Amino acid sequence: MPNFPYPLKIKPIEWLDGRVRWLDTRLLPYEEVYRESDDYERIAKAIEDMEIRGAPAIGVAAALAVAAEAHRYKGSSTEELRERLIKAIDRLSRTRPTAFNLFWALNKIRATCIDSDIASAEELRECVIRTALSIMESDIRSNMEMGRNGSKLIEDGDVVLTHCNAGALATAGFGTALGVIRAAWYEGKRIKVIATETRPLLQGARLTVWELRKEGIPVTLITDNMVGYVMSKGLVTKVVVGADRILRDGHVINKIGTYMIALCAKRHNIPFYVVAPTSTIDIATPLKEVVIEHRSPDEVRYVLGKLITVPDVDVLNPAFDITPPELITAIVTEKGIVYPPYDQNIPRVVSQTR
Amino acid sequence: MPNFPYPLKIKPIEWLDGRVRWLDTRLLPYEEVYRESDDYERIAKAIEDMEIRGAPAIGVAAALAVAAEAHRYKGSSTEELRERLIKAIDRLSRTRPTAFNLFWALNKIRATCIDSDIASAEELRECVIRTALSIMESDIRSNMEMGRNGSKLIEDGDVVLTHCNAGALATAGFGTALGVIRAAWYEGKRIKVIATETRPLLQGARLTVWELRKEGIPVTLITDNMVGYVMSKGLVTKVVVGADRILRDGHVINKIGTYMIALCAKRHNIPFYVVAPTSTIDIATPLKEVVIEHRSPDEVRYVLGKLITVPDVDVLNPAFDITPPELITAIVTEKGIVYPPYDQNIPRVVSQTR
Repeated sequence: MPNFPYPLKIKPIEWLDGRVRWLDTRLLPYEEVYRESDDYERIAKAIEDMEIRGAPAIGVAAALAVAAEAHRYKGSSTEELRERLIKAIDRLSRTRPTAFNLFWALNKIRATCIDSDIASAEELRECVIRTALSIMESDIRSNMEMGRNGSKLIEDGDVVLTHCNAGALATAGFGTALGVIRAAWYEGKRIKVIATETRPLLQGARLTVWELRKEGIPVTLITDNMVGYVMSKGLVTKVVVGADRILRDGHVINKIGTYMIALCAKRHNIPFYVVAPTSTIDIATPLKEVVIEHRSPDEVRYVLGKLITVPDVDVLNPAFDITPPELITAIVTEKGIVYPPYDQNIPRVVSQTR
Repeated sequence: MPNFPYPLKIKPIEWLDGRVRWLDTRLLPYEEVYRESDDYERIAKAIEDMEIRGAPAIGVAAALAVAAEAHRYKGSSTEELRERLIKAIDRLSRTRPTAFNLFWALNKIRATCIDSDIASAEELRECVIRTALSIMESDIRSNMEMGRNGSKLIEDGDVVLTHCNAGALATAGFGTALGVIRAAWYEGKRIKVIATETRPLLQGARLTVWELRKEGIPVTLITDNMVGYVMSKGLVTKVVVGADRILRDGHVINKIGTYMIALCAKRHNIPFYVVAPTSTIDIATPLKEVVIEHRSPDEVRYVLGKLITVPDVDVLNPAFDITPPELITAIVTEKGIVYPPYDQNIPRVVSQTR
């Protein structure tokens, strides 16, 4: 285990010498069930079904799935291995369309290993595994760096509202938005958290509450439509959320509901911070080309298997919305805090080597 | 049955010659269960437990509960009956603190009958029953007048977003916000509705969807946090909501989440209409004295009996929030449409006789 600056209490994704082990987040907080596979198809399904969710976690899991496929290959044909890896990457890249880290991680393996001039199957196999493991380790490390950077924005006594789960359970460990909260807490700041339940899949109620309770950080749960109330009552001093994709000009694509929270925060002059690694930044895609994933209508019609409405009612179920740059106070990355004007400062932070 | 200008397909509260009959809205849309009682304590519990909910429905049910108590009294002592009625009114006024129609209806019975100089128990009994029945009938009539007034604001092709259930199931029949939608539909306007599910108790998913399907009006269900998305995509052209209390200066107290919807509507230049009878208007209470009811934490922790989080997590559960006047395009009442400046026009509509 590498030497990290903060404790790492939750390990949602691990590499067990050829197999990928993950915590099935769908069953939390009722059961802590870990699953294992060396089959990228099974891991792709785990991503699609949201056993593994959260943009950085999806990227790490996909990278490890490709590594498992490399590990499984016992032959000596570089060409054959290359083809199998490309097939795995193609499949994994079709799991979730919005999370940018997924494409970032898969492209990194492709560029570093598959498209390189490596001649032997053995070397290619090792390159893929090494690259996937470094993606995992650097995810944790960059979360802790985001935590260190972001905790400067958090003051003793703050009440921090967060949405969905941008925690350890959305990453390889430590979390993005919850990483900032953890870091502030470990540094001795007495803070409290308000977590929104985050319908339809209740990641706030199920995952964020569970994570924060494990840390001993005080947390209060609200429904998504109570954000306006708590802000108007002065009960919130900061907002921190994660991101699934950040565009060059500062538009942030994140869990459905984020935009309404940002609007309320602006109205009540509450700082609104986005916490995400630079691997979340999509420097190339313009706003109008961003694909917002629509998921099954039954996610809205049912809550944990219980029908809440007329069975065949029409439903919309966009998984994400888009928060415009003017509502965002700052973006916390592992390379530092990015302030407006984003169209200048985001390209700068992306090109900057640490 | 009086002659009403529009069809009345759902009768959630009825007077059965001494007994009150109501549709238990907690069980919808799964089961249509009607309950009956002549015991005001039972009806008070039905209001507290939200078998009966929605500000106008609460007012009508409380009035009928007092009438049932009058009907039950078989003695001839005016003093004794008066005392029993006051006891019933005291109990019923402690059921829900925010809905203004409750106090309005109970005060009306008190002023018209109990505090009058009626000498005989028989006359007092008849006065209470007659007044309660007129409150019920005039609720339906005023809903239909609101419908007629408000439907002028609705155009062919509109997509109307509504929150919670301000429908037949929130009134003695026809509804306030859904009354406007019904009236526009009966007048041949081809409209569609987007209904928010309305956590914690899911009145949108359970009741509004059920009501609109009964009418054949197209409805799409979303979670509360999708309002920003649908508005930013141009999928909504109008918002209509009900109100639990309207202050003299135009502050609207309504179901939790209303404020965030109004903020989003303002941002996207979508007209935001509140539909409520003038009995909802509280001309006397200043903003800072309004009591927002907080309900049981388990309403947030559970969805239809299913635990969605860590069992003992701290919760906030305010039932209502406050939308400021500058976010409200107009208020539709049975006496006409009230536009800003509200601090001048609301007192005017209240004092106006039809």
